[in-house]
Amino acid sequence: MVRTFKLTVAYDGTDYAGWQIQPAQPTVQGKLQRAVAEITGSRVSVVGSGRTDSGVHAIAQVASCSIPTWRASGDQLRRALNTKLPDTIAVLEAVDAPEGFHALRDAIGKRYRYQIRVGGVRDAFQHRYHWHLRGTLDTSAMAEAAVRLVGRHDFASFQASGGKRKTTVRDVRACDVTAGPGPSTATLPSVELAVEVEADGFLYNMVRNIVGTLVEIGRGKQPPQWIDRVLASADRDAAGPTAPPQGLFLQRVDYPPFS
Amino acid sequence: MVRTFKLTVAYDGTDYAGWQIQPAQPTVQGKLQRAVAEITGSRVSVVGSGRTDSGVHAIAQVASCSIPTWRASGDQLRRALNTKLPDTIAVLEAVDAPEGFHALRDAIGKRYRYQIRVGGVRDAFQHRYHWHLRGTLDTSAMAEAAVRLVGRHDFASFQASGGKRKTTVRDVRACDVTAGPGPSTATLPSVELAVEVEADGFLYNMVRNIVGTLVEIGRGKQPPQWIDRVLASADRDAAGPTAPPQGLFLQRVDYPPFS
Repeated sequence: MVRTFKLTVAYDGTDYAGWQIQPAQPTVQGKLQRAVAEITGSRVSVVGSGRTDSGVHAIAQVASCSIPTWRASGDQLRRALNTKLPDTIAVLEAVDAPEGFHALRDAIGKRYRYQIRVGGVRDAFQHRYHWHLRGTLDTSAMAEAAVRLVGRHDFASFQASGGKRKTTVRDVRACDVTAGPGPSTATLPSVELAVEVEADGFLYNMVRNIVGTLVEIGRGKQPPQWIDRVLASADRDAAGPTAPPQGLFLQRVDYPPFS
Repeated sequence: MVRTFKLTVAYDGTDYAGWQIQPAQPTVQGKLQRAVAEITGSRVSVVGSGRTDSGVHAIAQVASCSIPTWRASGDQLRRALNTKLPDTIAVLEAVDAPEGFHALRDAIGKRYRYQIRVGGVRDAFQHRYHWHLRGTLDTSAMAEAAVRLVGRHDFASFQASGGKRKTTVRDVRACDVTAGPGPSTATLPSVELAVEVEADGFLYNMVRNIVGTLVEIGRGKQPPQWIDRVLASADRDAAGPTAPPQGLFLQRVDYPPFS
């Protein structure tokens, strides 16, 4: 009997050439497929909710796979997979899913988190997990700009060249900028910033392009209202630069409840 | 004019063969000495408050060095060093110190922190920074045992073989076990534990041997009072195993105030 599983997977993307399997490069999908093959003897495809780029992390990526040979519980599958995976990939949950469950096609929403640290000293322990900026950022202006992205818009300005989606219209359900004190030395305070974006789907590099654009506003180079002109232009060159990958985490993928 | 500096340095020890310089191996001291040479043109010795082993981290290691050629401020030295150092080493502070200040000889106390996670799933992001244990630990029993270590004792039982100190008597000023909830999934809660030990000085592997011994007590293999017998025996074989390096952080080094 073939069983379909829904896997929830966390990974540190630093040492991987992204999610998607590629010849002769370490990828998260490649490590998962190899682990499934080692413990079940089945060479099956592990389908992610979407790709993440090299250096991008996941707090809870979701993947589906159909295994013909597993008779034990989902939790036993989770534990067995973790014994075969490198330390930087962890299966958090493995549950039986309805036949035909497909992590990419069935996803109805996603939430990403982007972490920034402003000021302070380079963090020897957390440098893999944020974009470290000097100086200061006007976080109120960034938050004001962020809410202007919420709603159903054409996000063509925030799609990396090379994106080939049929439509560039997406429904952004939330775009939150939060800030709080980061680690500080006597003379060097820091601020930790998170930008969280939730949408029905994302274009290629969309979150990193949104963050790069918000940082231009935080730097005072553009006012919050600039966001409206960037959206309206539907032109990648109108937006800010792409934020680097190490600050980005795929935080959650939403599906309709299993019936 | 030769100036002496006191450097406070954080590092992720994962990728280093410890603090102390060694031929053909990456070490923290080696990286620092090279950075000083690159920015000042002076090949000087950077003296640490003590060695840390391969895989052991520092939140605030202290080092001293005397530089004949630096005319700018300590903070400018800090920033210049950080531009030359790898991401996993950060100089947090550089201040002028009295002539003759010596980070090893002048230290009057140190505090180490050891991080443990119990239960839950492997953490893809933090696995470099704790010892991950299955099952449960009786943290009250561990705390009860820990206070029995406080005071002036012969810690020979907690010294790795190969340690060659003249005396194995040390004054342990604090040995604190704290615990709190760690990250959890629906079915897999975890507990985060920290053991912090403060003393006038430490024997080789002393903290890791204390932690390994406390974990035996937390597992219920021995009662808290066992610690007294271990101390009295002055025999390494009487104590528990050595905890792995990745949970250990040199947290603080104390000096008399500069006069």
